[in-house]
Amino acid sequence: MTTTQSTLVQLDNYGPWTVTPEPRREMDLQTLQSRLFADIAQFIGGRGGYVFHTRFDNMIAVTNGINREAHTTLQESISNRYPVTISLGVDIAETPADALQGATEQIQAAGSAQDENRTEVLAGEFLDGRSVDQEPVHIAHFDVNDATGKYTDQLNEFDSFIQIERSYASLMEYMRKTHGALSFFVGGDNMIAVCPELSAEAYQDAIDNVERDVGVELKVGVGRDSTAHKAGIAAKHALEACRSHGTTVEFSEPPVSTSDDYR
Amino acid sequence: MTTTQSTLVQLDNYGPWTVTPEPRREMDLQTLQSRLFADIAQFIGGRGGYVFHTRFDNMIAVTNGINREAHTTLQESISNRYPVTISLGVDIAETPADALQGATEQIQAAGSAQDENRTEVLAGEFLDGRSVDQEPVHIAHFDVNDATGKYTDQLNEFDSFIQIERSYASLMEYMRKTHGALSFFVGGDNMIAVCPELSAEAYQDAIDNVERDVGVELKVGVGRDSTAHKAGIAAKHALEACRSHGTTVEFSEPPVSTSDDYR
Amino acid sequence: MTTTQSTLVQLDNYGPWTVTPEPRREMDLQTLQSRLFADIAQFIGGRGGYVFHTRFDNMIAVTNGINREAHTTLQESISNRYPVTISLGVDIAETPADALQGATEQIQAAGSAQDENRTEVLAGEFLDGRSVDQEPVHIAHFDVNDATGKYTDQLNEFDSFIQIERSYASLMEYMRKTHGALSFFVGGDNMIAVCPELSAEAYQDAIDNVERDVGVELKVGVGRDSTAHKAGIAAKHALEACRSHGTTVEFSEPPVSTSDDYR
Amino acid sequence: MTTTQSTLVQLDNYGPWTVTPEPRREMDLQTLQSRLFADIAQFIGGRGGYVFHTRFDNMIAVTNGINREAHTTLQESISNRYPVTISLGVDIAETPADALQGATEQIQAAGSAQDENRTEVLAGEFLDGRSVDQEPVHIAHFDVNDATGKYTDQLNEFDSFIQIERSYASLMEYMRKTHGALSFFVGGDNMIAVCPELSAEAYQDAIDNVERDVGVELKVGVGRDSTAHKAGIAAKHALEACRSHGTTVEFSEPPVSTSDDYR
Repeated sequence: MTTTQSTLVQLDNYGPWTVTPEPRREMDLQTLQSRLFADIAQFIGGRGGYVFHTRFDNMIAVTNGINREAHTTLQESISNRYPVTISLGVDIAETPADALQGATEQIQAAGSAQDENRTEVLAGEFLDGRSVDQEPVHIAHFDVNDATGKYTDQLNEFDSFIQIERSYASLMEYMRKTHGALSFFVGGDNMIAVCPELSAEAYQDAIDNVERDVGVELKVGVGRDSTAHKAGIAAKHALEACRSHGTTVEFSEPPVSTSDDYR
Repeated sequence: MTTTQSTLVQLDNYGPWTVTPEPRREMDLQTLQSRLFADIAQFIGGRGGYVFHTRFDNMIAVTNGINREAHTTLQESISNRYPVTISLGVDIAETPADALQGATEQIQAAGSAQDENRTEVLAGEFLDGRSVDQEPVHIAHFDVNDATGKYTDQLNEFDSFIQIERSYASLMEYMRKTHGALSFFVGGDNMIAVCPELSAEAYQDAIDNVERDVGVELKVGVGRDSTAHKAGIAAKHALEACRSHGTTVEFSEPPVSTSDDYR
Repeated sequence: MTTTQSTLVQLDNYGPWTVTPEPRREMDLQTLQSRLFADIAQFIGGRGGYVFHTRFDNMIAVTNGINREAHTTLQESISNRYPVTISLGVDIAETPADALQGATEQIQAAGSAQDENRTEVLAGEFLDGRSVDQEPVHIAHFDVNDATGKYTDQLNEFDSFIQIERSYASLMEYMRKTHGALSFFVGGDNMIAVCPELSAEAYQDAIDNVERDVGVELKVGVGRDSTAHKAGIAAKHALEACRSHGTTVEFSEPPVSTSDDYR
Repeated sequence: MTTTQSTLVQLDNYGPWTVTPEPRREMDLQTLQSRLFADIAQFIGGRGGYVFHTRFDNMIAVTNGINREAHTTLQESISNRYPVTISLGVDIAETPADALQGATEQIQAAGSAQDENRTEVLAGEFLDGRSVDQEPVHIAHFDVNDATGKYTDQLNEFDSFIQIERSYASLMEYMRKTHGALSFFVGGDNMIAVCPELSAEAYQDAIDNVERDVGVELKVGVGRDSTAHKAGIAAKHALEACRSHGTTVEFSEPPVSTSDDYR
């Protein structure tokens, strides 16, 4: 069984800020958003978690092993260095979708994303100190078979992107509806899904569905461990196994037990 | 008539690098990709251009007004500060898709994206010194009507993202096929399209098509000027006009003539 | 009594890299150095430590409360994202200078700073798990009295800088020789010293010495706590007390006990 | 003869901001300052200029070839992405010190550095369009002879830093008083001076003075060109010539004429 601690990072009242007093330079907004995401990725990643940029003004994180105090430090550090602030909602559940549902509700309960009086919410439930499963986080790392040969080196870049985007749109909807898994495009031809416990058949079905739907062939490596980082590294190794064996679905070996202490 | 100078930014042999000698920490890759994009956005944005992260290992830019020497400086600066290098292909055409096609071919002709001996290509045609149209760049800035009220404040963040993602997938394919326009998701509920000359009816048709296709309501402001930045700022003002007038498509006023010198 | 855990961060073979194959653009080197320092400041600062840029190719950190695993993660993350790597030497001692001496020797023992075969050293002693003093870290935060009124608003900026630089040069040498304390210029008119246990008289003597030596008047707030961050925040509050009381040396109140867990 | 265009970058009301409403985390301030400097270094460096961090809340730039519009873009971009804003004073003179004097006065005339109502000043004289000397900018790049062998590999890092700091303090005061040159420590054992026209004897005297004063041996390469970047690269090559010839002062060859266009 899986147990996901999910954190929703939401920029406070960001939309109005981008056009006040005048619409701001788009490349400055892009820079601000990307660097803010990068800083949060370093903070959460250095503590064993994963965060995805999603819509940039709302980012979704898997934060097993990261406690309330660290969340407070992140929130304070962002407000010290950026012209915007962040709210953080946190929750725990078996499936990633349920955890995110709870995390989102924590923030929604405090006010609208565009309520200028709602700033720096920090609310929700943390796994701190509770005993949990041995391998609470499952990460599936998908990529496209021979994307460079079939798309990047053949089509113009936008048409290559359309192929990848289609496969992502198909996969994200299927995994969300069928399994309560959350899938993210992470660049190139890579997609990472945070999943509940799923069989090899379930992963094969997901891949078959994308191929039927949009004609793009995927493969997947799956890792399971105590944190997103550890499960994710295991997933990457499993994906390398797909490459060397010519297989479509590979699971990582059970993890070697190591210390979880990232402090 | 429009004239787009498009630059394709392609990371050299990036896929293999991410797994050599072992798969690298995903949050480090996310940080690297986001900051590289942010730096390129600052470089190009400060000279009046626009760049979009697209797949992060391939980024698409509109570079009217940015010459070969600046491209060389960008390439050198990235190689001085990052563990990866970039190739740049550049071309000019009436439609954005044709310009990108030429830009992509410049890089493809020099070798595969995963050819380890192909590094720091800089090839193609620049607009330098040629007389061009008064308003060669057209930028359309779309957003979703009341995305905060309908999605962000109501659904869990992933389900909000699915709505936005669907509308983006629909718009990008329609604009590409129908008009040779290139559309990019830029965060929140915003999409920016680099377009050829299009009528108000053509924009209304695009919006109607997305609503029929996926049920999401968009509006759009359109700007036209000598650079992507100037056209983009005009588009943002036009989008504000949609908001205050309750309209769906607005064009900016003709631009006031000002100096183009960003040096 | 104090117990300092000090980490020396040394860029591997950096000097030769800056001129290979040709001398690199200075502004790219400045950018690289500053951002590398900023990233290390975020990593160490988010875990309760302090790091100072010193010579940028060698940075000095106070890392009480930060263990070996975190050091490993930092080293890996830098090598994933920069074109240079870092070596880390760590040691513990009563005085900051002795701790740094040991930390430096750990790296020197592994080879020269310009030995191209010596990369990513991680060596030394950590405080992990050992019982330590209640307030092992003492931080003194100095600033210049009315630097804005006397210098910034009166002189050209270089001449203002000369005044601050003189006071820093005087203070750093005095504190090093007299007390084994390490003092760093941190911008504006601020200097932060990592100190052993010192009396109010000792701090007053240091200030008097600087005034006699170079004619610049300082004041200082001193904080003591389990980590550099906590001691440093206490020192800042003490410095605010100097400002409001018109005094020259202030010690913070004993810290309220709180959890140290930054994980 | 030289002609320096100097820009003073001053953070608006920064000191009070760092302690309002409470003193902010020092590592966040260090991160903010370093990244702000890095961004300005990229902006100015990509246009052929040099900027030095000096006190971080005040930065000194050499901006020959960078016009008013670019300064406006920089100011806007910083205010879009940081929680602080910058004022810019600009002036032209034969010696760097005189240019900076004028640049500083432009900002001082608009109000105190800690006047909360004085924000985003942009004032002064630019070289735009004026005919200037062929080689208006002279850059001298100094380093310490065998700093790695004598200091870095022998002493603890703070004691190495003391040696470098002493040589910098000595050089910066001598060059300022004797020649109106502005010298900056740029990391490692490197110092860069922006100079008026000086003979080889004058540079030798400066080096001799530092050795007499603090016992540290320097050497210097001098470059002359139309921009700080070009003169600086020439200076670096001249310093390499010192290394290979075992000499103390080298001037670069006259520059090959190339386009100045960085736009």
